[in-house]
Amino acid sequence: MRGIGEEAVRRCDLFKSSPFSDETGALTRRFLTPAHRAAIAQLSAWMRDAGMSVRLDPAGTLVGRYEGTGPGPTLLIGSHIDTVRDAGAYDGTLGVMLGLGVIEHLHRTGRRFPFAIELLAFGDEEGSRFPASMLGSRALAGCTLDDPALTQDEAGTTLAEALRDFGLDPAAIARASRSRDEILLYFEPHIEQGPVLEAEGLAVGIVTGISAQTRLSVEVRGEANHAGTTPMPLRRDALAAAAEAMLALEAIARRRNIVGTVGAVQAFPGLGNVVPGRAVFTVDLRAPRAEARDAAEAEFRDALAAICAARGVSAKVTLHQRLAPCFCDEEAQALLAESLRDLGLRPFWLASGAGHDGMSVATLAPVAMLFIRCAKGISHNPAEAVMAADVEIAAQVMLAFLTRLAVHSRLSLG
Amino acid sequence: MRGIGEEAVRRCDLFKSSPFSDETGALTRRFLTPAHRAAIAQLSAWMRDAGMSVRLDPAGTLVGRYEGTGPGPTLLIGSHIDTVRDAGAYDGTLGVMLGLGVIEHLHRTGRRFPFAIELLAFGDEEGSRFPASMLGSRALAGCTLDDPALTQDEAGTTLAEALRDFGLDPAAIARASRSRDEILLYFEPHIEQGPVLEAEGLAVGIVTGISAQTRLSVEVRGEANHAGTTPMPLRRDALAAAAEAMLALEAIARRRNIVGTVGAVQAFPGLGNVVPGRAVFTVDLRAPRAEARDAAEAEFRDALAAICAARGVSAKVTLHQRLAPCFCDEEAQALLAESLRDLGLRPFWLASGAGHDGMSVATLAPVAMLFIRCAKGISHNPAEAVMAADVEIAAQVMLAFLTRLAVHSRLSLG
Repeated sequence: MRGIGEEAVRRCDLFKSSPFSDETGALTRRFLTPAHRAAIAQLSAWMRDAGMSVRLDPAGTLVGRYEGTGPGPTLLIGSHIDTVRDAGAYDGTLGVMLGLGVIEHLHRTGRRFPFAIELLAFGDEEGSRFPASMLGSRALAGCTLDDPALTQDEAGTTLAEALRDFGLDPAAIARASRSRDEILLYFEPHIEQGPVLEAEGLAVGIVTGISAQTRLSVEVRGEANHAGTTPMPLRRDALAAAAEAMLALEAIARRRNIVGTVGAVQAFPGLGNVVPGRAVFTVDLRAPRAEARDAAEAEFRDALAAICAARGVSAKVTLHQRLAPCFCDEEAQALLAESLRDLGLRPFWLASGAGHDGMSVATLAPVAMLFIRCAKGISHNPAEAVMAADVEIAAQVMLAFLTRLAVHSRLSLG
Repeated sequence: MRGIGEEAVRRCDLFKSSPFSDETGALTRRFLTPAHRAAIAQLSAWMRDAGMSVRLDPAGTLVGRYEGTGPGPTLLIGSHIDTVRDAGAYDGTLGVMLGLGVIEHLHRTGRRFPFAIELLAFGDEEGSRFPASMLGSRALAGCTLDDPALTQDEAGTTLAEALRDFGLDPAAIARASRSRDEILLYFEPHIEQGPVLEAEGLAVGIVTGISAQTRLSVEVRGEANHAGTTPMPLRRDALAAAAEAMLALEAIARRRNIVGTVGAVQAFPGLGNVVPGRAVFTVDLRAPRAEARDAAEAEFRDALAAICAARGVSAKVTLHQRLAPCFCDEEAQALLAESLRDLGLRPFWLASGAGHDGMSVATLAPVAMLFIRCAKGISHNPAEAVMAADVEIAAQVMLAFLTRLAVHSRLSLG
């Protein structure tokens, strides 16, 4: 018989292709598509086999419930089963398959906890079909959602139509919301999508929270000139100023031990023999805490202003997004650390730079996340890879965590 | 009666619109178009009124000849009457109108020199219609040209067809070539197209030569990563490396007192939330002497290699163009300096960073150029502007230069 880790990886790999992908030759499983329907059907069967009762909530989240020995709040284990286009097999789906494997193991060994466990498979985390993302977890948390009748995919199908075609009632989405009282904790296992665990030589890591994020665009205006006839001291080169600002951002992020990225840049007129009169670039700044992110942003803006003043150019900064951080529950983090030590593993904490359903759920209930090492940090790419041995370790950590949580919930919550 | 400068500016302004532009509301006068034909007709009339005999050479260059008092080599005064799209009024055309005004003045005052003067209005310097540029001056210098039957404009018209439609014989282009013996000097007055004279507070400057130019493209390859999940020390950011290389190029050019420009850059995949795995940018390096340019290129390549090594990325440099410099005749430069002093002006020397017909002619005969101050260095733009007073100074310098050249040519050449 396969281990939980090996089985979870096998199931993810099975979900890579037809009928679980909307494309042939690539994995694309978007919200409310035939591939999504097939995934729900298969997962439902596995859930039932694992002793769970199954329902589809009004926001398209598949919920399998494994009863506990007593009343009281429920442990939610979840992640998402939708993907980006031409995706890897493990982003989201692995967390669901891990939860499934753990509950199967409990069912097989006849174990129950004082709390019920619900396995959630969110249908829309990536936002790869409709403009908004995390629809399932936001609905669960009771967040205000856009009108499904006004939200369209690129083919012009509204979310309302897609929900109805899927057998769901668009008017009922709000009924997907849960109350704080009925949730013990939301726990999400997920591939790291970064290179930190690999660099540390660790299979799993305890997530401290999801980073605060700020996205800006910067437009530098100088003066376009002939590249052959304009001496260096008489130039007001917008791109040279932008290059200096990019390196300032990098230095600030390095010094503060956070992340800062310029992902795109363009110079105008963009000809090899013209000194650029205008340059635009993007800025993405993330830090576990909002204060660190905001201090870095302020420092970047000051550096940019100084660079522009020294070069006789001007800059306009546009704010596109400033997302609050999400913090993982501290007691749950401590329990996870103990669970790792139970297994002889070194606890290691890291922040998530990427967004997850936990961000939405955290507005309602405590959240915990366990990251699993992935190859080279590659994600949103068919080259996404995990080792079954790491997934097995994650499964064992989850089982140890459930045991500790049972004791802890009796002591502090029960 | 208007001064020569004022009249030259007026004529340039007249040539801004119909029938001398192929567009309405903007100046675009391309080779062998109706606007070119109209310009030739009007210039021919003015040339004849100024006592010149007029012919169109087989390469579409209008030649007006003002006879001298003796035999021997001819002084060529010229520039181009074609323009870029949406052009300024003075690039090229001003030089022709200045030559015209100076010869008109000689004709009016009954002055002749030992040498004949020919006024050349080249029809194709910019290369804004057919792929190659400087067709008129290259034909004059006897350079090898592309086959007119195989050279097409964007509408699919071949150069051969366009020449025939213009009444010219494509097979006869080679007959536009002149022999070294018949040319005393090629003299071109031209707007500076740069900001140096303005910064120096001078109306005119003596051109020492046309800069050597090297054009490269650089491709940096690192690794694309998630902007949120990849810590700074684990990144191999291609764009950050490119930014550092751009600033290195700028510093090298500044220190060596030459010009170096990055006019275009692109990052891939070019998304705000992805660390760029690839970045490409252009490099344009120019210096009056090839040695200085080549030393700067070598220093840039070394700096790029060091930056890449430090960042764990790689770079590929592609050479697109490496043009030799052109040097203006030293005796002619000295005569121009004396002519400026005759008028109580401070001689000032500068190199041309932009290309001119003189580059082609220099392969055959000695070349001299006089630059005229333009506003803010702006060119190839409707905002191109000159002051009539500066153009008048240029005309007076040309008249003084003709006088000195007459003495000098008798002494050393006659």
